[in-house]
Amino acid sequence: MCTSERSTDYAVMTPALRINSERLNTTLQASCTKWGALSELSTGMCRLTLSQEDKEVRDWLVAECKSLGCDVKIDQMGNIFAIRPGKAKDKKPIAMGSHLDTQPAGGRYDGILGVQAALEVLRTLHENKLETHCPIALIDWTNEEGARFPGAMMASGVWSTKSSTPLEACWGIQDKEGIFMKQALQDIGYLGSVPCDYRENGLECHFELHIEQGPILEREGKSVAVVTSVQGMKWFAIRVKGREGHSGTTPMTGRSDALVTASRLITAVRDTALKTELGVATVGVINNDTSSQAMIPGGIDFIIDIRCSTDEMVDQLASTIFAAFDDIVKQESNGTQYEVKRTWGLPESKFHANCIDSVRAAVSKEVAEDQIMDMKSRAGHDSAWTSRTCPTSMIFVPSKEGISHSPNEYTSPEHCALGAQVLINAVLEYDRSVKEGKY
Amino acid sequence: MCTSERSTDYAVMTPALRINSERLNTTLQASCTKWGALSELSTGMCRLTLSQEDKEVRDWLVAECKSLGCDVKIDQMGNIFAIRPGKAKDKKPIAMGSHLDTQPAGGRYDGILGVQAALEVLRTLHENKLETHCPIALIDWTNEEGARFPGAMMASGVWSTKSSTPLEACWGIQDKEGIFMKQALQDIGYLGSVPCDYRENGLECHFELHIEQGPILEREGKSVAVVTSVQGMKWFAIRVKGREGHSGTTPMTGRSDALVTASRLITAVRDTALKTELGVATVGVINNDTSSQAMIPGGIDFIIDIRCSTDEMVDQLASTIFAAFDDIVKQESNGTQYEVKRTWGLPESKFHANCIDSVRAAVSKEVAEDQIMDMKSRAGHDSAWTSRTCPTSMIFVPSKEGISHSPNEYTSPEHCALGAQVLINAVLEYDRSVKEGKY
Repeated sequence: MCTSERSTDYAVMTPALRINSERLNTTLQASCTKWGALSELSTGMCRLTLSQEDKEVRDWLVAECKSLGCDVKIDQMGNIFAIRPGKAKDKKPIAMGSHLDTQPAGGRYDGILGVQAALEVLRTLHENKLETHCPIALIDWTNEEGARFPGAMMASGVWSTKSSTPLEACWGIQDKEGIFMKQALQDIGYLGSVPCDYRENGLECHFELHIEQGPILEREGKSVAVVTSVQGMKWFAIRVKGREGHSGTTPMTGRSDALVTASRLITAVRDTALKTELGVATVGVINNDTSSQAMIPGGIDFIIDIRCSTDEMVDQLASTIFAAFDDIVKQESNGTQYEVKRTWGLPESKFHANCIDSVRAAVSKEVAEDQIMDMKSRAGHDSAWTSRTCPTSMIFVPSKEGISHSPNEYTSPEHCALGAQVLINAVLEYDRSVKEGKY
Repeated sequence: MCTSERSTDYAVMTPALRINSERLNTTLQASCTKWGALSELSTGMCRLTLSQEDKEVRDWLVAECKSLGCDVKIDQMGNIFAIRPGKAKDKKPIAMGSHLDTQPAGGRYDGILGVQAALEVLRTLHENKLETHCPIALIDWTNEEGARFPGAMMASGVWSTKSSTPLEACWGIQDKEGIFMKQALQDIGYLGSVPCDYRENGLECHFELHIEQGPILEREGKSVAVVTSVQGMKWFAIRVKGREGHSGTTPMTGRSDALVTASRLITAVRDTALKTELGVATVGVINNDTSSQAMIPGGIDFIIDIRCSTDEMVDQLASTIFAAFDDIVKQESNGTQYEVKRTWGLPESKFHANCIDSVRAAVSKEVAEDQIMDMKSRAGHDSAWTSRTCPTSMIFVPSKEGISHSPNEYTSPEHCALGAQVLINAVLEYDRSVKEGKY
């Protein structure tokens, strides 16, 4: 039998297997307009994890994947694994994962592009009737943003079993309305029974297409980045305690003003990061116990987000910041105190050579060498967790002006399509290598 | 006719007219337990203006006053005027005013003591069947705290017609849930038809018993203060604008972080007040546009509360603070900007000699001279507004440890009773002077 007659042999077809740019971009935009648009006039998104909008887009995604012949598994953290069978019965899936949830005022690309591109890959494989060696999986990871239930990359962290927050603890996290995560999973019908554990529901490898969320590709005039690692990051929840008092009757000298002390600490976070050049440190969230303009604040909470190339640098920057905090509290000597209430973290993650090589080969087929660069991810991603249990790499496409986590987030349709094409190339490259016994 | 036979002639009775300490304190405590208690275990209060709790305590107050023979008028801002008629038909009422609303986590004395003491005065006059020369009024001023609808001393400000926020503008102010003040007045049945204007619903004079809300009386070992003025105060709503960005992917040097700039400005508010010694300046409220720990904040709002002995000093302190702000924004030179979104103010208020003399005479009948001091109020009060349209003065009793706007606010039953006794003495003193043609 001539191989050219076998539509199931991708070896011959691969060079010609093209994703459908228009279908990808139309589907992405339409799904965002329908499920979670901030307003009719902007491309801003508010699709908080496990919300009604998230449920509806998940339901649609599951139906789409089933119509493409996928088996769909939902695990205990609501992660969706849509698996297109391969020929080999002893292989785990080659996964294409990302997330469909967004920040409260996010954009249409962060996470969403990765899942939509994975769907486009499945559609392309399906319409070309390509039989891969390994199964190919689309994954929608739950609560990547950590915007509703605190703790980013939460469900991939549970799945990797390497996170400091295990399943039961995640189920017990509450949103601002006091709803437990387990209840929220149940409420939208995504509390699955498949173990959220890579040892029981494993992957051959994990690829993730994502927007860069930074300005480097655009600034350097490049089209694609081969992502080789994710920097280490830690978050610290800080509480500053002072003493409430009436703003008119309490003399300036007798005050124990939690907000003034917190303000000095927040300034020190920025100043220390700038001075040490170890990485970035940000306070994104601040909350005040009192809501009266006529009160001296008695309690302030804020969260510090620290990211550096290595875990060691993260710890070094954190300890330099806390040393500055201690100095400030000593200087103030007015009874205000700070405490570290809680910490989370994502360790530095180095991606796997096999996956990096597959992405490099995949992108070389699409653009000239001067359009490609290697990059270390400065944002956290589910791939950072998967990389701890299976070979992983990522593909970045440019973010306009480096803007992300904002309604102004934008990646051109051409770059979205390029990313999806690189993704399918990488998946098929990896699959071929497995088939050939190289990986 | 012998005057001693006329129970209606207070001139004879005055020295013997004693308020009922137990009734006052029991009524005050019971009303707080019933309407607005924060919890069963504390004496904390949350009786936001025009809330259900406020409606219920108002309904009770109105019924009590009617049972004492008072006419009750409700004005367009929901102010309650309960007026006990006097003999003279050409006289306006001698008023005893304060407020029943509290901070979101306030105490049982700020405002509440003044209204409850006024009720106790009415009860005492009633049970003694005393006919005064002038009508005697109890007033509950709406939204003194400004905690639900921003703008403290709001309704007395409208009544005085001297506030920069007129009736229609106040009606148009919204609470956090977006409810308009006019709607809230309507909802609890206190949108009255009496003009909220001293020219159409005037007073002979205004007395207010209040807790000091500061530490001075206690520190000096005094029991009562004769209040001679209220310091000037201004509030400035500030908005700091920066540029949102991802906390991981945006380098430290390219940032326009609104929270870091706001933190430096807030520190400068405190530092400037300390350095200039012109008065007190406080930031009690801060709000952040974003609620994601992985975002560089793009917009921060906060409110500065400035209070000084004179209006001139308020303006001087404000302009020194804003000069410091300008320096900081220039230093940062990262695109962050601040703007003053809105201002409110309460001008410096000097109380009237006739009212001050009445209070001085009243208090001298109750305690030794070494228990009395003159004081300038450092907190704002409805009396500051009334003083601009009619003779006004205030009586302060001690606050334990100077604490106020807190569940820990406390004034002893003995001091509450002493304050109420001084209040009735002052009212009768003033009434006698009017009758005698002295005022």
